[in-house]
Amino acid sequence: MTTLIERKRDGGVLDPAEIRWMISEYAADRLPDYQMSALLMAVFMEGLEPQELDAWTDAMLHSGEILDLSNVPIPKVDKHSTGGVGDKVSIPLAPMVAACGVAVPMMSGRGLGHTGGTLDKLESIPGFRTALDPPEFRSIVERTGLVLAGQSETLVPADRRLYALRDATGTVPSIPLIASSIMSKKLAEDLDALVLDVKVGRGAFMRDLDRAHLLAETMVGIGAARDTQVVAVLTDMGQPLGRAVGNANEIAESIEVLQGGGPPDLLEVTYRLGEEMLMRSGKAVERADARSRLEEAVESGAAFEKLAEVVIAQGGDPEALHDPGLLPSAGHEHVITASSTGYLARADALDIGMGAVALGAGRQRKEDGIDPAVGITIEAKLGDMVEEGQPLARVAWNDSARLEAALRYVEGAFAVSSEEVVAPPLIYGEVS
Amino acid sequence: MTTLIERKRDGGVLDPAEIRWMISEYAADRLPDYQMSALLMAVFMEGLEPQELDAWTDAMLHSGEILDLSNVPIPKVDKHSTGGVGDKVSIPLAPMVAACGVAVPMMSGRGLGHTGGTLDKLESIPGFRTALDPPEFRSIVERTGLVLAGQSETLVPADRRLYALRDATGTVPSIPLIASSIMSKKLAEDLDALVLDVKVGRGAFMRDLDRAHLLAETMVGIGAARDTQVVAVLTDMGQPLGRAVGNANEIAESIEVLQGGGPPDLLEVTYRLGEEMLMRSGKAVERADARSRLEEAVESGAAFEKLAEVVIAQGGDPEALHDPGLLPSAGHEHVITASSTGYLARADALDIGMGAVALGAGRQRKEDGIDPAVGITIEAKLGDMVEEGQPLARVAWNDSARLEAALRYVEGAFAVSSEEVVAPPLIYGEVS
Repeated sequence: MTTLIERKRDGGVLDPAEIRWMISEYAADRLPDYQMSALLMAVFMEGLEPQELDAWTDAMLHSGEILDLSNVPIPKVDKHSTGGVGDKVSIPLAPMVAACGVAVPMMSGRGLGHTGGTLDKLESIPGFRTALDPPEFRSIVERTGLVLAGQSETLVPADRRLYALRDATGTVPSIPLIASSIMSKKLAEDLDALVLDVKVGRGAFMRDLDRAHLLAETMVGIGAARDTQVVAVLTDMGQPLGRAVGNANEIAESIEVLQGGGPPDLLEVTYRLGEEMLMRSGKAVERADARSRLEEAVESGAAFEKLAEVVIAQGGDPEALHDPGLLPSAGHEHVITASSTGYLARADALDIGMGAVALGAGRQRKEDGIDPAVGITIEAKLGDMVEEGQPLARVAWNDSARLEAALRYVEGAFAVSSEEVVAPPLIYGEVS
Repeated sequence: MTTLIERKRDGGVLDPAEIRWMISEYAADRLPDYQMSALLMAVFMEGLEPQELDAWTDAMLHSGEILDLSNVPIPKVDKHSTGGVGDKVSIPLAPMVAACGVAVPMMSGRGLGHTGGTLDKLESIPGFRTALDPPEFRSIVERTGLVLAGQSETLVPADRRLYALRDATGTVPSIPLIASSIMSKKLAEDLDALVLDVKVGRGAFMRDLDRAHLLAETMVGIGAARDTQVVAVLTDMGQPLGRAVGNANEIAESIEVLQGGGPPDLLEVTYRLGEEMLMRSGKAVERADARSRLEEAVESGAAFEKLAEVVIAQGGDPEALHDPGLLPSAGHEHVITASSTGYLARADALDIGMGAVALGAGRQRKEDGIDPAVGITIEAKLGDMVEEGQPLARVAWNDSARLEAALRYVEGAFAVSSEEVVAPPLIYGEVS
């Protein structure tokens, strides 16, 4: 191992057999953390060549079980987002796509830091269980064509160990390490295609477009070496996506989308990713055709019914979908208003995400609990004209100390300009 | 700690309080190895600024006891070598300097890898003890002005832990980490001056002059921030120093020096370092004056008597100094001869050092034992004219399998050229 560390440290290349040996020894607890962390820092500094990255991802993938979804006769497609604020896209998207005859065996994560997590949001539906073992996961996707669960402990165990080590050793923001972590987990889902939503901006993990582009290319490159079609769409995370930031409120907004409503930016991203999923799965050739199938699934109520079906299959109360009043709600509301008349120039996703965490909607540490009822509703988007005193955001809160902490972030998140502001693009491009 | 790792990773600077906190937490076993190894790799890659290095060294120094030699009324000077093959300089040098009225509280190390260790060599004197606790160490130097011991466990404990971690994580060859490791141990000896012998060449830790120079400057810089005068002399380690490579044979050669004999290259380095020690301690202003004092100490027998005195104080048999036949000796000799007539073009210190290890004179792993009797005697120096069949080296051996392993290194260590060969310089310069 010391030889491998030294070689990577000096900018050399590890061969596939060496990488496989290293990852499997580490996963089996036969390599000490202190050697792996030194290697991770060397990888952070020196990067990984494509063939090293491929071997690394492959070794991670084979550190555990790989799902066998061969009994699912229809194409299997998943979507993964690199994480953002107000990013509830998975929740309306997965049932829309499943309603079009594509299986969506979706494994999601929890919120950490300023970004929210799909699992936390789903669990605000009373009774909804996201911890499924592989047989139950498989059985639900076979029956309904859709499952919305957490990462199984038996899949890619090396990633859990490596991620915890990276988190403690300053080696998280390395593009090859991020790419192999995401891709190994997704490749373990036995997919035909994968659509990646790479978020860019202050509220995203990748703050600048160049790095986001590089991450997208790196992940698409890993897919290219395999049978799984991979496409990455780069989308904006400078301001939150949609209006709701929290958990129960994001479920309510997702239901709006499935009922034909919802804010335009959320719809644009959801439909764009849905089009990619249908096209990559072979269910549509033309983008316009994919779009109309998705719209039809919403208009017919089939997408909403698909969500209700999976909520029932996973132990949740489907009444909460019909009556969002059954979702957890906060006791109080604090309104943030525009201090002057003009154009909204700032609605910072990072500050708003940090505010939501402070409020209790997210977690600072993995072991923290969350309050599904609290959250922030954004009432204006960048470039919107606003009048002095007009609400910019509503903060739903339960604990006054937490509200106070949240306002320290949220009040500074907004700025109004007297000059016209051009809204930033929502979709920056695509890599495939 | 993660913040500190990230800052260093990104080329930032840690402040002295942060470094002190980190080293003291690590020494107290309150920081995990995996975080320290990631930081070490970041330091390897990004280096340390002078003020960081100073704080780092200081924190290491204060991780344990600092010797109090205030009862020693004469100047206290030590010499430290970065390690080489046949480098027995400490053994004749320390008594020569002590005989001139300078206290030499010398702490040395054991051999590791292809380099020999002063402690191993000294222990080939029957009965000689190198493991002294600080009170005994102090008492011997107070009485005799000289002590030749191992590093005390109570001095710089952080260095032992850090060195073991660096050894396992590919972070040994970092100039600031080497410099702080050496200097913290030497500063803990309560010295007035320190002379460093920075070896350069194939058989040294620093193979090229630029890196050796940088290490010398870095160590001298650490001393400059303190009361200890530090000078570094850069000397050649392309070929072994002197004739003897081993343990008992290096003691015998050291005794030759103290009796007015010894090979010219060993004498040149020993006297040069001795001159620096006398000048830095204020015992001589001019180099020529220092030189004649050292020569007088040898000619009068005072230097030899000083060694005998310390051997007795440390439990050794002084008879072995008068009669080197009492030192361990090997049962067999194998002679390596010149394959043609010409000039000696190669006598590779690394190969010869590796051969000595294979023979049993050194250790591959810290826990290995050594055979003090075996070793290699070099019969020709680079540039010497040699005749076909003339002995180039004599290998004293006890175990035929080990001899065979040793010859694989040693036979390839020598080459004879038909064209004249200019011997390389022995002393490359000085940094102070």
